[in-house]
Amino acid sequence: MGKENKAKTAITPTRAEDYPEWYQQVVKASDLAEHSPVRGCMVIKPWGYALWENIRCVLDEMFKETGVKNAYFPLFIPKRFLEREAEHVEAFAKECAVVTHHRLEEGPDGKLIPAGQIEEPLVVRPTSETIIGASFSKWISSYRDLPLLINQWCNVVRWEMRTRIFLRTSEFLWQEGHTAHATPTEAMDRTLQMLNIYEKLTGNYLAIPAVKGEKSASERFPGAVNTFTLEAMMQDRKALQTGTSHFLGQNFARASEIKYQSAQEEELYAWTTSWGVSTRLIGAIVMTHSDDDGLVLPPMIASSHVALMPIIKKTVDRNTVMDFTQTLAGELRGQHYHGRKIEVEIDDRETGGARGWDWIKKGIPLRVEIGPRDVARNSVFVGRRDRGPREKESVPRDQFIKTIVPILDDIQKNLFDRALRFREKNTTEIDTREDFYAFFTPQNPGNPEIHGGFALACWCGNPTCEEKINTDLGVTIRCIPPDAEKQTGKCIACGDESARRVVFAKAY
Amino acid sequence: MGKENKAKTAITPTRAEDYPEWYQQVVKASDLAEHSPVRGCMVIKPWGYALWENIRCVLDEMFKETGVKNAYFPLFIPKRFLEREAEHVEAFAKECAVVTHHRLEEGPDGKLIPAGQIEEPLVVRPTSETIIGASFSKWISSYRDLPLLINQWCNVVRWEMRTRIFLRTSEFLWQEGHTAHATPTEAMDRTLQMLNIYEKLTGNYLAIPAVKGEKSASERFPGAVNTFTLEAMMQDRKALQTGTSHFLGQNFARASEIKYQSAQEEELYAWTTSWGVSTRLIGAIVMTHSDDDGLVLPPMIASSHVALMPIIKKTVDRNTVMDFTQTLAGELRGQHYHGRKIEVEIDDRETGGARGWDWIKKGIPLRVEIGPRDVARNSVFVGRRDRGPREKESVPRDQFIKTIVPILDDIQKNLFDRALRFREKNTTEIDTREDFYAFFTPQNPGNPEIHGGFALACWCGNPTCEEKINTDLGVTIRCIPPDAEKQTGKCIACGDESARRVVFAKAY
Repeated sequence: MGKENKAKTAITPTRAEDYPEWYQQVVKASDLAEHSPVRGCMVIKPWGYALWENIRCVLDEMFKETGVKNAYFPLFIPKRFLEREAEHVEAFAKECAVVTHHRLEEGPDGKLIPAGQIEEPLVVRPTSETIIGASFSKWISSYRDLPLLINQWCNVVRWEMRTRIFLRTSEFLWQEGHTAHATPTEAMDRTLQMLNIYEKLTGNYLAIPAVKGEKSASERFPGAVNTFTLEAMMQDRKALQTGTSHFLGQNFARASEIKYQSAQEEELYAWTTSWGVSTRLIGAIVMTHSDDDGLVLPPMIASSHVALMPIIKKTVDRNTVMDFTQTLAGELRGQHYHGRKIEVEIDDRETGGARGWDWIKKGIPLRVEIGPRDVARNSVFVGRRDRGPREKESVPRDQFIKTIVPILDDIQKNLFDRALRFREKNTTEIDTREDFYAFFTPQNPGNPEIHGGFALACWCGNPTCEEKINTDLGVTIRCIPPDAEKQTGKCIACGDESARRVVFAKAY
Repeated sequence: MGKENKAKTAITPTRAEDYPEWYQQVVKASDLAEHSPVRGCMVIKPWGYALWENIRCVLDEMFKETGVKNAYFPLFIPKRFLEREAEHVEAFAKECAVVTHHRLEEGPDGKLIPAGQIEEPLVVRPTSETIIGASFSKWISSYRDLPLLINQWCNVVRWEMRTRIFLRTSEFLWQEGHTAHATPTEAMDRTLQMLNIYEKLTGNYLAIPAVKGEKSASERFPGAVNTFTLEAMMQDRKALQTGTSHFLGQNFARASEIKYQSAQEEELYAWTTSWGVSTRLIGAIVMTHSDDDGLVLPPMIASSHVALMPIIKKTVDRNTVMDFTQTLAGELRGQHYHGRKIEVEIDDRETGGARGWDWIKKGIPLRVEIGPRDVARNSVFVGRRDRGPREKESVPRDQFIKTIVPILDDIQKNLFDRALRFREKNTTEIDTREDFYAFFTPQNPGNPEIHGGFALACWCGNPTCEEKINTDLGVTIRCIPPDAEKQTGKCIACGDESARRVVFAKAY
């Protein structure tokens, strides 16, 4: 990130100068979303919402292939439902929007005030285990009703005091899957199956390489027996979760009375799972791929694929250039990129260079300029977002049409490889307490956000050690990778024997 | 509806016996949705949610073809936003969920109580004109920013005291389109363009013939200048709206300060529209097509197209029958029905006749039984949902595969034609006050729901006449059809000269 610093960049500040502010500026310049006048809530603008639609489309198909069906459950959760699972209510009671009245009425001063108090306060869902559990307990009576595999796409609210667009907002969009099974093995298989789907989404579509593993007890979903996660490294070397899947054991089945009669006519509690990803993923896309010129979108999930920019300096050229552009757009739109129609923007604003920079900042994978000379030569002038803004080349029109799919694939691959290299470069096995503390101490005093990255270090399994590191450094265990058991050594905090090497990092 | 009354039916009561209860029982037996433990909210089950997904898919494509883009706006609306448009706030303040606190805390008795009072109460959106208006006023500054064409798919809440599943629930799902234009003509064109899209959805997909027209002032959307509507006739002859589109004039632009600078550099208010349909449409599907045996789904929008039911009485037959069934399913799924993959259910439960009735009650367009004799003859035994439950025929397997698309089309057409005939039979031009009152007086004392239907009668345009008819009969003006101006006569209420014949009906 050092070199770009000196060049003129489209985004101010650069990543190296002020990463958090760079992030806000990239989101703004790309027109993905903005803060709303409602505290903590965001407005997702069309360019950002298209990313969510594409994510939804990909995930929804993968879910359905495994037998999951979509449904919809109430926005409101009665207070008593939330109280049914002790850890769960403790975690969410602190940050929930509470509906207490069902109308507004003129007060003594003529202004509207809340009226019609509701008997039992309703909580706007922060997650739906308890309300979906109430349905599951009605729907399930026999082993023949299992497994029950349900997903919902919806909004949820977790009241946040300090918000950051996409990463931490009071309202966000997500999907939450909820399943019930007859055996713990089956439930655990499902938990991991869904984690694998998230890994496929993250890796193949978002071009984000993520580390897979289990959460330590302190980082588990409140009420879960095991939480599994994908942890990706952002460009400030902090970790961001790109999917979590929870094995809930029988905790929520007991809380919601989800019972079934087995083939042997015993009455048993079911085993449940839940799993979800949210609009936070858009923040992960921004922070993984973007550069000091703005957003960079992976083609597989991009809001659109190509921007065509006709260049018309003389009125006499207008018709030929526009016809050429329209015909090209039509031919491109007639093609598919991995099952999705190629999406083409025609930008005929007459703004000169600013127009090209707009599309760079919006992160569109391909920019195509078309002037009278290009038309005459039957060629187009192409810029790729994974290359420098001025690195453009003239390509014969027909060749461009024929090769657009492999070009997009190449961009997709480059973004993934670049992110993987970055993560590998900033991931280190650390074996001494001293090195560990140094690793997480900012190297650049001007930018306190930048530190070492992911540390693979031993941990004895004691929550006290975990807590000490968090208190001292603001560093947490992001996950325990599946092969962790094999790596023995000494706990980075207390020096005791440790049977596993885990991933430590600062995190969003 | 008289004849079926005597036969044994799958749904009790029949439509003729008790229409509202029949409706609830059809919804229940088809597994579309159920009431939730949260007052006024419903749980949309997978079979019902699939209908909404199909509606969304069809509409979304039609919207996007006209340049509309999807976005997402906050769930919460600050009270002061709602207050900006006088008619609007008056209508919605009466029935809104109000968030007043942002956490739950242990009270003196150890129970959780609302805590962390919010400075300004937030209303859970009943509709989003005011909050989207706040964004529009930021996004629009020049005539070059117009038209702005935005849609959002979301949940909304209107607190209801008396709820009926799909038809009137406190929370429902919908889409709401919001557009801003430079001229009133352009805004009015868009208003009508979207109404036409709803007409296409209703007619071509839901197989519901609807009457198109304008609302009278008293039935307009609160704050609108004109509201246009589609009115369909249910089988109890009451009207149900299947889409509304509003020309908002400059009312909401003034309320939210949506201004633009014209090419002549004048600062002007924009002209806005809004338009929406909701999960209420599912209620319309149920009430238009279903019969005394349960739900009937139009193939174009059906949750699934075909149920295959292998009949295995001897273990020795299992493999051949199941193989035959699986292969058939695969070949059917490889085909498309109007752009959508043909969806096939395999129901291998061994429940005999009950299984067939389950699918009848669920309204699937085609039921296919496959026994060892069918396999031997390479044929299938097919029942269509638009025919009697026992009217089934043996069809060569290959012919069935080849003709499934035209068969589904034929069912779709039959449902539309049947609904159209029903509406035409129950729509009458009425010219005297006496006939009008008789028309709306229940004919069957045992079933007070059943009355005449749609009355085409003259109305002088005076709201007092409209109100009198509503008070006397519970009948309202559903719409003023576009050709209404040409039909003169005497007002059905006051006898004065009237320039138009309008549609009167009882309504949901």
